Amino acid sequence: MRRHQHHRCNISSGSETGSGSDSDNNTTMRCISCREEYLRRDAGTCKECYVEAGETEEELKREIEDLKAKVIFLRFPSCLDHGSSRSFTDVVLIASQDAAGPPPIPAHKAVLVSRSPVFKAMLENEMEESRSGTIKISDVSYNTLRTFVCYLYTAEASLDEQMACDLLIMSEKYQVKHLKSYCEKFLVTKLSWDNSLLTYAFAHQHNAKLVLDAALSQITNNMDKLTKREEYLELVEKDPRLIVEIYEAYLSKQVNTAAGGASTSKTG
Amino acid sequence: MRRHQHHRCNISSGSETGSGSDSDNNTTMRCISCREEYLRRDAGTCKECYVEAGETEEELKREIEDLKAKVIFLRFPSCLDHGSSRSFTDVVLIASQDAAGPPPIPAHKAVLVSRSPVFKAMLENEMEESRSGTIKISDVSYNTLRTFVCYLYTAEASLDEQMACDLLIMSEKYQVKHLKSYCEKFLVTKLSWDNSLLTYAFAHQHNAKLVLDAALSQITNNMDKLTKREEYLELVEKDPRLIVEIYEAYLSKQVNTAAGGASTSKTG
Repeated sequence: MRRHQHHRCNISSGSETGSGSDSDNNTTMRCISCREEYLRRDAGTCKECYVEAGETEEELKREIEDLKAKVIFLRFPSCLDHGSSRSFTDVVLIASQDAAGPPPIPAHKAVLVSRSPVFKAMLENEMEESRSGTIKISDVSYNTLRTFVCYLYTAEASLDEQMACDLLIMSEKYQVKHLKSYCEKFLVTKLSWDNSLLTYAFAHQHNAKLVLDAALSQITNNMDKLTKREEYLELVEKDPRLIVEIYEAYLSKQVNTAAGGASTSKTG
Repeated sequence: MRRHQHHRCNISSGSETGSGSDSDNNTTMRCISCREEYLRRDAGTCKECYVEAGETEEELKREIEDLKAKVIFLRFPSCLDHGSSRSFTDVVLIASQDAAGPPPIPAHKAVLVSRSPVFKAMLENEMEESRSGTIKISDVSYNTLRTFVCYLYTAEASLDEQMACDLLIMSEKYQVKHLKSYCEKFLVTKLSWDNSLLTYAFAHQHNAKLVLDAALSQITNNMDKLTKREEYLELVEKDPRLIVEIYEAYLSKQVNTAAGGASTSKTG
């Protein structure tokens, strides 16, 4: 919760007379929240609204506590704990990328099925995976797969940018929307001008709308520097459609800004 | 979110002069939240605090949305759905109270174990229940057992007072704290003078502290009517200790009130 920079009022307790607006505007009051003095023109709410807002905040906080308790109740024990809490597993997942033969990751069909429509189709339709109790997943590292499975049990993952990208790809493949959204939000927080073009291309490839929009906004705010970027030249070669979409977004933004500027002439 | 009864200000826009406090106090302002006018003495916050409070509220609401999405993700499909979503079950629960032989309720050992330390001990220690894959539960109706199992999957149950009491007993037996707390909160909302003595005795029997305190408070606020109650006479016969505890709570309240009244003489 941010606290604002306090506006210390340098008020010369005026010697005006009369109940006119000048005098009123120099009247100072003390805010019952931040305890600072403020001028009439900086007045916010009445006391009742302040009290109500406080009650609303308390209610919301109670709701958050209730929901957090629910999450803890519904969460399975961490999948890092390979002891008793992972008992009664009836399937293993194997990351087939690693040649060394990584250890299989035990899991419960019921959990996989309830979290992913792809696992559901795979396991409920008596396909090879269901019969053998083994799901081989190619093009993924053991570490990524383990983090992915963990997330299905706990709705939690410790991310860095690489892991967020890897998990986003997995979540798209297995249609785990909640995880995809989790990765997208993380990637948006890591967005910068430096990684914006690569992130944009990545988001495009994996239908990550939230990341795509954020990256596009980052790029179109810095169009002057765009064509000098190495990744720009590469992208023009490799996938010029993506570059076209950047120019289209930029153009559309310019048109909107012009229209907005014309209609809301009171800004600025 | 309640809205307060607006304090319409009948202000005769005064003809006072001077910037003294009388004049200031008659200055009216318009609350930027409820849009009503208020007097200086009813002023709440400055504008910045109002804006900040609004931002805080938005942040809390976003957190609530995130948590709700997490709950939905972690929740298993409703146990009312006996179709595909309940597949891969490896245990059944049977309510042995009903003579008619109620249908067994299929479940997953992994879910039972993760929600209840009692099921955990039962199923992981190769006891009869684990070997046979059948858990017989006496003294419970099929309907209660089904609602109980449902809750373990979804953290949700539709309650009435009877069901809340039945589930509270089950949650105590199987140490499902989250459910016990859920039932307790429900029973507190249903508390009235009419059911307070029975609820008090029930809460006592099942270590339901939240309900116990609420019931005790209800009772000690109406001590003049207590001894005329039929349940009172029954309880004196059956479990006089409970009645003693009521009197002790009442006495302690009186002492505290007297002490509070003496030290905070500015109340009233």
